[in-house]
Amino acid sequence: MKTLRVAILGATGLVGQEFIKVLKQRNFPMASLVLLASGASEGKRVIVDGDEIEVHEATHRLLENVDLALFSAGSEISRIFAPEAARAGAVVVDNSAAFRMEPGIPLVVPEVNPGDLEGHQGIIANPNCSTIQMVVALYPLHRVNPIKRIIVDTYQAVSGTGRAAIEELSKQAKLVLGDEDSVPHVYPHEIAFNVLPHIDIFLDNGYSREEWKMEHETRKIMHAEDIRVSATCVRVPVYVGHSEAIHVEFARPMSPEEARDVLGRSPGVRVLDDLDTNLYPHPRAAAGLDEVFVGRIRRDTSHPNGLAMWVVSDNLRKGAALNAVQIAEELIERGWLQGSRFVVGGYLTVEP
Amino acid sequence: MKTLRVAILGATGLVGQEFIKVLKQRNFPMASLVLLASGASEGKRVIVDGDEIEVHEATHRLLENVDLALFSAGSEISRIFAPEAARAGAVVVDNSAAFRMEPGIPLVVPEVNPGDLEGHQGIIANPNCSTIQMVVALYPLHRVNPIKRIIVDTYQAVSGTGRAAIEELSKQAKLVLGDEDSVPHVYPHEIAFNVLPHIDIFLDNGYSREEWKMEHETRKIMHAEDIRVSATCVRVPVYVGHSEAIHVEFARPMSPEEARDVLGRSPGVRVLDDLDTNLYPHPRAAAGLDEVFVGRIRRDTSHPNGLAMWVVSDNLRKGAALNAVQIAEELIERGWLQGSRFVVGGYLTVEP
Repeated sequence: MKTLRVAILGATGLVGQEFIKVLKQRNFPMASLVLLASGASEGKRVIVDGDEIEVHEATHRLLENVDLALFSAGSEISRIFAPEAARAGAVVVDNSAAFRMEPGIPLVVPEVNPGDLEGHQGIIANPNCSTIQMVVALYPLHRVNPIKRIIVDTYQAVSGTGRAAIEELSKQAKLVLGDEDSVPHVYPHEIAFNVLPHIDIFLDNGYSREEWKMEHETRKIMHAEDIRVSATCVRVPVYVGHSEAIHVEFARPMSPEEARDVLGRSPGVRVLDDLDTNLYPHPRAAAGLDEVFVGRIRRDTSHPNGLAMWVVSDNLRKGAALNAVQIAEELIERGWLQGSRFVVGGYLTVEP
Repeated sequence: MKTLRVAILGATGLVGQEFIKVLKQRNFPMASLVLLASGASEGKRVIVDGDEIEVHEATHRLLENVDLALFSAGSEISRIFAPEAARAGAVVVDNSAAFRMEPGIPLVVPEVNPGDLEGHQGIIANPNCSTIQMVVALYPLHRVNPIKRIIVDTYQAVSGTGRAAIEELSKQAKLVLGDEDSVPHVYPHEIAFNVLPHIDIFLDNGYSREEWKMEHETRKIMHAEDIRVSATCVRVPVYVGHSEAIHVEFARPMSPEEARDVLGRSPGVRVLDDLDTNLYPHPRAAAGLDEVFVGRIRRDTSHPNGLAMWVVSDNLRKGAALNAVQIAEELIERGWLQGSRFVVGGYLTVEP
């Protein structure tokens, strides 16, 4: 098997670091690893498997000799570098929202729509974190009983915002515990011991862009233009792990037993649902793990064809880095991502 | 105006303390105030307006010469003491779930169904905290456009559990911030930097009792047996203030503007809804205040007759103590709560 020259753009960020971790944990066939970031990170060193790798400022040149480029540095950076990297021959898996809704650009969750990778033009979009975990949990049910409507309210961790938000939560929490005042910086209001119904910017229809993503990305990934979706996305003082209260309406009634049975056989899903032993998913237990955890599955008392459930997953892993690496693995398996022209023994090397 | 001999049962608890605060802040016409609690609190002293009041162990005798008894000591205690106190002539406003769904016992939110107080038999039930703030926000809309269905997911503060939960949250948060392990006691899992879809016990249909309360109490308070309700109730690491993401279906479409207009003229509600200035309710801003705050009002993208909104209120005040005192005020106004036989100048005295 050929090995790949891999670049990570946004290597010093939370998702960038998770990319490195996931690639190593899964023994991803790397010939080389180039770590790129903004100019501010130039010269920083990141330890990967005991080796120090230097971080370089992203340039078009550094993305020229790359087979796979994993991007997580925001939409603006993706718009600058992704098209050119793809033209130079790389496959870009982009974690930003830049290309997600562009027709012709695959928006992929491997458990749901791997076939959409076919005929890709070099850029593949990695979906929104909250959307990924929701479709992993819902798509297997949709296949046996078409979903008509989804109402979802989220409980999203601050790591979705980035490192500054993690620091802000810790700092504010310490101040509150010490009975001192704190001033919000990262979010418009305090996040410690608080919840904020505000993720990404607000749009003209009163929804936030995060809520808009959950609506539109879900339809694109599931190939289900008719599913109606309404979301309220809420930031909670949790470090890692997004949770979602989901209320689904199907074409026909579905029993919780059937849903548990279907999900129990579905890839990437783990059912944790035993109320007698207080077994249900929660973010502290899901952080660091790969699965999408589903529990509290019950008939929705407000609709004859409804189910309610509770879905939790690590937003940095399945919600971002893991899903992107799984996309690359899927491409390799299908023969759509070619190995590098020169192989360096499958060993990790710096090659700026 | 006559003044009342008031007793508080559960005086050392969070709601008990809030009862005292609310009574004083509203200049409630008290002739005397008796503070009762479990035997463990016997002899404790509570400072009210600079005066120390001794706490006594609750007994039937101590509830004999009382005009108004505010109960917040759990269902078991309410079942023991409320019927006898009522028989002895007191009006009991009971914050527990003991009598809420009993036919003939009024379950009252003064902004919604004050008329249900008529013909009360001495016990009036104060609804569940999450339910109170929801019906205060929804009932004015229901009056102009009947509500058919409510889906609500909550973000509930630990003060709803009591003082031990507040201490547990602080203690666990300190341990996590110091990178130390913590063991949960009050909740089955850690609550610091976590969220738990688990409030009260679980029932056979997979819903928690808190979720069941939101369904059934809403229908009783709003006199709307046909409204379908599904709730997911979630504990979040917030000290005070419950938040709710609500998705409502009406008989006819309703614009966000109309909803804001109706709510802007409704008692006990304050609309905070200006996305341009990041104005929306959140618990840190609502704690200590009386109103039910409503924001993020928007058309529900998943239903033609739907609205989505975000509702926040102080769970100890409007969700508990304030609503109970407002019930007493309503009774006084309607002449259904008589003043005491001997008046002590309207001044606060201890009279065990």
